[in-house]
Parts: sequence; structure tokens; C-alpha cells
Amino acid sequence: MSNDARDLPRVAANGLLDRRLFMRNMMLGAAGTATAGASLADSVSTGQPEWMLTPGATTEDYGMPSRFEMERTKRWTVPPAGQIATGRSIAAMTPHHMMHGTITPGGLHFEVNHHGIPDIDPDRHELIIHGMVERPIKLSVDALSNYPTETHNYFLECSGNSSRLWADKPTASHLDLTHGLVSGSEWTGVPLSILLDEAGLKPGAKWLIAEGGDSGSLSRSIPIDKALKDSMIALYQNGERLRPGQGYPIRLFNPGFEGNTSTKWVRSIRVTDRPVMSRFETRTYTDLMPDGKALQFSLGMEVKSVITRPSNANSLPKKGVYEVTGIAWTGNGRITRVEVSADGGQTWGEAALQGPVLPMMLTRFRIPWEWEGGPAILQSRAYDEAGRVQPTRTDLIAARGTKNVYHFNGIHSWGVGEDGGVQHVYA
Amino acid sequence: MSNDARDLPRVAANGLLDRRLFMRNMMLGAAGTATAGASLADSVSTGQPEWMLTPGATTEDYGMPSRFEMERTKRWTVPPAGQIATGRSIAAMTPHHMMHGTITPGGLHFEVNHHGIPDIDPDRHELIIHGMVERPIKLSVDALSNYPTETHNYFLECSGNSSRLWADKPTASHLDLTHGLVSGSEWTGVPLSILLDEAGLKPGAKWLIAEGGDSGSLSRSIPIDKALKDSMIALYQNGERLRPGQGYPIRLFNPGFEGNTSTKWVRSIRVTDRPVMSRFETRTYTDLMPDGKALQFSLGMEVKSVITRPSNANSLPKKGVYEVTGIAWTGNGRITRVEVSADGGQTWGEAALQGPVLPMMLTRFRIPWEWEGGPAILQSRAYDEAGRVQPTRTDLIAARGTKNVYHFNGIHSWGVGEDGGVQHVYA
Repeated sequence: MSNDARDLPRVAANGLLDRRLFMRNMMLGAAGTATAGASLADSVSTGQPEWMLTPGATTEDYGMPSRFEMERTKRWTVPPAGQIATGRSIAAMTPHHMMHGTITPGGLHFEVNHHGIPDIDPDRHELIIHGMVERPIKLSVDALSNYPTETHNYFLECSGNSSRLWADKPTASHLDLTHGLVSGSEWTGVPLSILLDEAGLKPGAKWLIAEGGDSGSLSRSIPIDKALKDSMIALYQNGERLRPGQGYPIRLFNPGFEGNTSTKWVRSIRVTDRPVMSRFETRTYTDLMPDGKALQFSLGMEVKSVITRPSNANSLPKKGVYEVTGIAWTGNGRITRVEVSADGGQTWGEAALQGPVLPMMLTRFRIPWEWEGGPAILQSRAYDEAGRVQPTRTDLIAARGTKNVYHFNGIHSWGVGEDGGVQHVYA
Repeated sequence: MSNDARDLPRVAANGLLDRRLFMRNMMLGAAGTATAGASLADSVSTGQPEWMLTPGATTEDYGMPSRFEMERTKRWTVPPAGQIATGRSIAAMTPHHMMHGTITPGGLHFEVNHHGIPDIDPDRHELIIHGMVERPIKLSVDALSNYPTETHNYFLECSGNSSRLWADKPTASHLDLTHGLVSGSEWTGVPLSILLDEAGLKPGAKWLIAEGGDSGSLSRSIPIDKALKDSMIALYQNGERLRPGQGYPIRLFNPGFEGNTSTKWVRSIRVTDRPVMSRFETRTYTDLMPDGKALQFSLGMEVKSVITRPSNANSLPKKGVYEVTGIAWTGNGRITRVEVSADGGQTWGEAALQGPVLPMMLTRFRIPWEWEGGPAILQSRAYDEAGRVQPTRTDLIAARGTKNVYHFNGIHSWGVGEDGGVQHVYA
């Protein structure tokens, strides 16, 4: 094999390589990664580190991350968690720049809590289903636990995710601040359709009003067609019971819809013939258009992607071949294709998608890239099975204006400098 | 629809119903679940619970389970975590009777630690690959993080899982004590084949000796064919960096092999032409046969399943239709079929498998079952794509004897009493 990296199959300008390169393991023989292992002879270790000299710690009833990681990967909260009174709206971001794969562990799942996190005793929590139904019902958490269940991997995204990218200039370079309000989990719960069947929908039922058991009784209106299609009352997240910040003991979950509709701590589902026009679908979570009118009930999340490595947290130590990787998702079903550009969108190469690609779940993409030491603009562009394509920021703003703070799904850009530093830029 | 449950489609004796019943939502109109919601009119709530009267708690940098769940779902450790000196062997079990889905959260993943958990500084940890290679290499964790990655969902099972079922009489009724040494995670890491390619295997290389960075330097021998096929150096578990009890900052991961081979805290991979015959493949982790000889390097985990609900933790409150659910797995690839019996193995009904069914990962199965109030013996039997079938306990013992304490994959039985109580029995 040649030792000249220029012989590697290129799929786009500025160093993007064929996505199958890593799979065939041919790259290393040809060009070597930027980080190829040092020769062992260079520096043989002398002696053992102190953690090998005495027996280690005992096992805990409930394990936690390493103390070295707790500091690096903790969620960024706005406002800072320690500095606010309880009960105020707070957003906590998933640190995707420090993570990999598609699952978000419970402790790092994003949260937006408008009235704080209630400390609910599961033995005293109940869900009532009432309104336009034949037989209003009331369910304890124990009773719900004996119903038929389903398990699915789904992303959850706040419609305010990436809101900073509506701003005229890049206001934050950190990935958690621009894309930290999306996470992925395995959710297990009771299909809402089973419960609505049991209650018996009356003719004319068109919406349901879901109300949470938080102190502000956060309420949202959900179209009944969605509820019957794939909504669930979630009991478990990543195998364990929901955590308090995720709605313990139960939450509504509407796959692919904006996160706020998946009512946490749900206690009431009222079937109606019209939406309730709650505070969280009038004052907030509406999309203000250039003409001063607002889109309401823009519930589905659009096709989107972002590169998580390299990112602001991972500068490039030297020239060579790197894996560019990130996550893509869409409320319209499955991701069908992700392309990556190293020249700010002029040319694109197709990334490999990690299978299985699941509907309405984060999809991990990867593509090898040779950084030759010059400036580069890395971007990703996702496609979904509904035929939607992630728009450029320019096109998105041309269509939607800049008065809106929700539903930004435009292409994100990482600028790579000649020093290997990486920062968020507009391009 | 009829209100007579006897009209429901039955697939085996003693109440097992068609697995498609829940999917079609027809059951509730016909028979009703055991736990159908109480009429709302029966007891309208008066007032709000105290957690709705004041703003809730703030969001934490790293979230934790509810205080109500921390007590119920903590891992059972043997010996108890608080009562032993550090450094002794300890086993911590995943509480599957309190869980659902297929993913095990990091905090509840099983652990077997023979020399305690080392407190490793990732910036000082290195992996060396040496022995029968052309170019010995040394990799820091940072360097490894820039290599190409793969992400897969895999189960991990200790070969000592279910060892109590080799005993003459049922010695434990709790599911965590009989089946708590298996868990499922999303693992992300660097394919070992890439690193071995970089080092360059010399002719005659047949095994590799993986050594951990714990104080006992736990070592295991892995066939090179396995390493080249699908082993990885895992960096991330369920999206975040490995936890200390899972090998932070890096572990070897051999999909489908007994857990102990997936060397935690891996620091050295030495390529050889023969196994090293370490303590953990001679003194332990061998299978003693009736003739006094031991099977060695019985590395692959066999096809297996267990019902997680109902279980010792979930008695049946009243007659009616329940979901019987559990997990199945095999080191031979994918689970192809799971059957459930309610009469101790005389008749069997096919359970529904939750898709996507992934190779060498836990697969969730479900089947509806009408409990008519009489005694029942619930069992599950798994099949895999290699054509293997989970054996009865009797058949397994006939083949292997009872001197062995590893690799028990026989059928497990839950006895349901007329009071709805559930306990572990032999049948």
C-alpha cells in the first residue's frame, strides 16, 4: 500500500475521505491516523501507578461516573443550578461534545423545568383520563405497571434547542449551549391508545389536554390522532424508572414532537374537541414570523444534525486523519442520509450511518477526514425519509425571519484554524 | 365484542393468549386487564398533593433517580457493600425485577470486581500492545479517543450468573440473586482489529493476553480470531465515559463472551501463540464436569432467557389478564424465538419480540396471560439463530452434572400460588 495519503479515495474537497475507509481498515496502512500509537520503545513505563499498589474501592449500590468525568461532563445549566431559587425555569444541557453513541444516560439527559422538580411519592400519584370519554378512569402507578408495554428508542428535543443560532452573530462556541437540548433514550411505557380505548372516546374528540403534577400544572394540547398513533405513558427510561427531572413517576411521551408536549409528572389527560390555549402554547413555544403573526402548534421536530467531534472540546493535535462524527435526528421518522462538508458547504461527502437506524431516534454518523493543516469549515447536513433536508442557516432565516426563538434546525458550522483549534462560526 | 375472556385466542394451556392481542388493542374490549382503571366517580381527589403547593427542586449538574427508587432498585451486592474491606471479590447484581426495556443504566449494571475498583487518572493511563507484533505501540486515552469508533448494543453476562440454579434445591427466590449478573448497554469504542493492524501481527500469533490495571492485574487469554472479528476497546457506555466499576477509562469488550474476558481497566494486550493460563482461567472460570475434569476456555455465552415480570417483586393482585415479559440473549448472535409456558413446560405459546432484535444484546419478549386464579408455573424458553435452544434444568444437569458453578443457561420457573404470590421454584 502507498504511504501517500493523497492516494486515499476522496469524496469531497479539503480532505473528506470515503466513509467505508475505516471499515476496510485500509487507512492505517496507507496514511496513519493523526494519533497513531507511539512506539513502545520510546518510553517504557517504569513501575506501576499508585492505583495498582493497593486494593481498589468497593462497589456501590448505585454506581456513579468517575470523579474525573463528573467535572468534565456535568450538564451546563442556565441559570447555573447553584445560583437560583427553586421553582424558576431552568435549562440543563446534554454535553454532546464529551459523549458518544446515541443513548444519553439519565444523569446527563437535558431538562427544562419551568416550576422546579416535584418530589412525588409514587404511591400517591394518580393519572385521570376524563373529558369526552365514555368511562372516566383513574390509574395508580402500580395499576399502570400491569398494563401492556412497549419499548422504543426516541430522541427528545426542546423546541428551544439551538435558539442561539437565530442570533446575528455566533454568541456561544460551546456545543452544549447550542445543541444541548436534545437527548436520546430507551423509553418503556403503556401505549396511550390502550388507555384511551379503555376510557372510550366520545364522538367529536379531537384533542387531549395533558397536565403535569408540578406546582405550575404545566399543560399542553395534543392532537388525538398523535395520541392514538404512538404516544405512551412512559414508566421507564434506559431500563430504570424515570428520574424526577424526567417526570417521575410517569410522563406522557410524544415521539418526534417538541419536548414540552411530553408532559412530565402527568396527572390528568382531558379529552376535548379543541386545544386549551395554555400559557405554554401561547406565551411560549410559538414561532413568531416576520409579519408579526405566530405559528402555533408547530409540534413536530424537523430534520437536523450536528457534528459532535471535533468540536470546541476537541482541538486537532496534529495533521492527519480524524473521524468526524455527530448525531442526526428527525421527527418525521428515519434519517436516510447525512453528508459532511469540510469546505463550508461547497462540496459534500456521504457519511456512514451507524445501524440500526431507528425512527425518531438519534442516529450516529461518521466519516474519515484528513486534516492537512489548513483552515476548514466542517458542516453536516441530514436528510429524512419524509424527503426533508436540513436547510442552511441562511435559507432558514430567509423563510422564517429572526424574531423566532424556536425550531432552529439549520446547518451548524465548526471553524478549524491552522492551530487545530475548533470554534463555532457562521458560514 | 364478547365480554367472555374464554373467547380470546389461546395459544397454550393455563391462560396464555395470542401475542398479537395487545397490539390489536382488542383485549380490553373483551376481557379487561386485571388492573383496568377505577371509575373516576369512585373517588375524586380532593385538593392537591403537597408537591404541587410549592415550587419544586432545582436541576442538578448530574441527575439521580428518585429517592423512592434509590432504595427499591439498588444493586444487591454479595457480600454487602458496606460490610467488606476494599479489594475483596464482590458481586453486584442488576435488579431486573424492578426494570424494563433492554438497556441497563450505568448505576445498575452488574459488577464483579476481584480486586476492588481502581481510581484511575485517565491522563496517566496507557494501553500497550506488544508481544508477537511488528511494531509495539503505546496509546494514551486521548490518543485512543481520536481513532475510528463503532457503536453497538451488547449484553454482558458473568459466567457465574444463575450459579444458584445448579443447587439441589432453590436457594434464592429473588431474581437479582439468580439472574442479576447480566446487563445490556450501548458500547462505543475502537475496533481492536484496527489497533492490531497498526501493530502488525507476526506469523503464528494465535492468542492475546489482556491485563487489567487493577491491583491484581486480572488477566485473560482471548483467541486472536475473536479479537479480529468484533472485539473493541470500549471508551463509552450508554453515551458517557465508562464508569469506574466498568473499567474506566478503557476496557476490552468481547461481545457474547463471558464477562470476565472483557478486561476492565485494560493496560496491556500481549500477542502470543498460546493462552497464558492465568489464575482466572485455571482456578476460576472453568467448568468442572462429573468426571472430575474441567472445561477450559468455555468463553461463549449460551442461549438463555428469564421472565422479569411477574416475579418475586410483583405478585398478582387479582384475577385477569397480565403481560408476561422478560429478557432473552445469546452469545451466538440474534434471538429468533421465545416461548412461554404457564403450565411448567407442558404447553408453550410464542411471545412477541420487541424489535429491533440485535445480535448479542438483550431482547425483550412479551405475551399476554390470563390468570384465572389457580396455580401456575411460568417459564420462558429462548431460541437463537445458531439453532440453539435453552435447555430444561434437568437436561442441562444430565449433560453437565452439578459440580460446575458456571454457564447455567437452563429454563427458570416462577411458581404462582392461588394467593397471587410468585416465587422461584424448580419444575
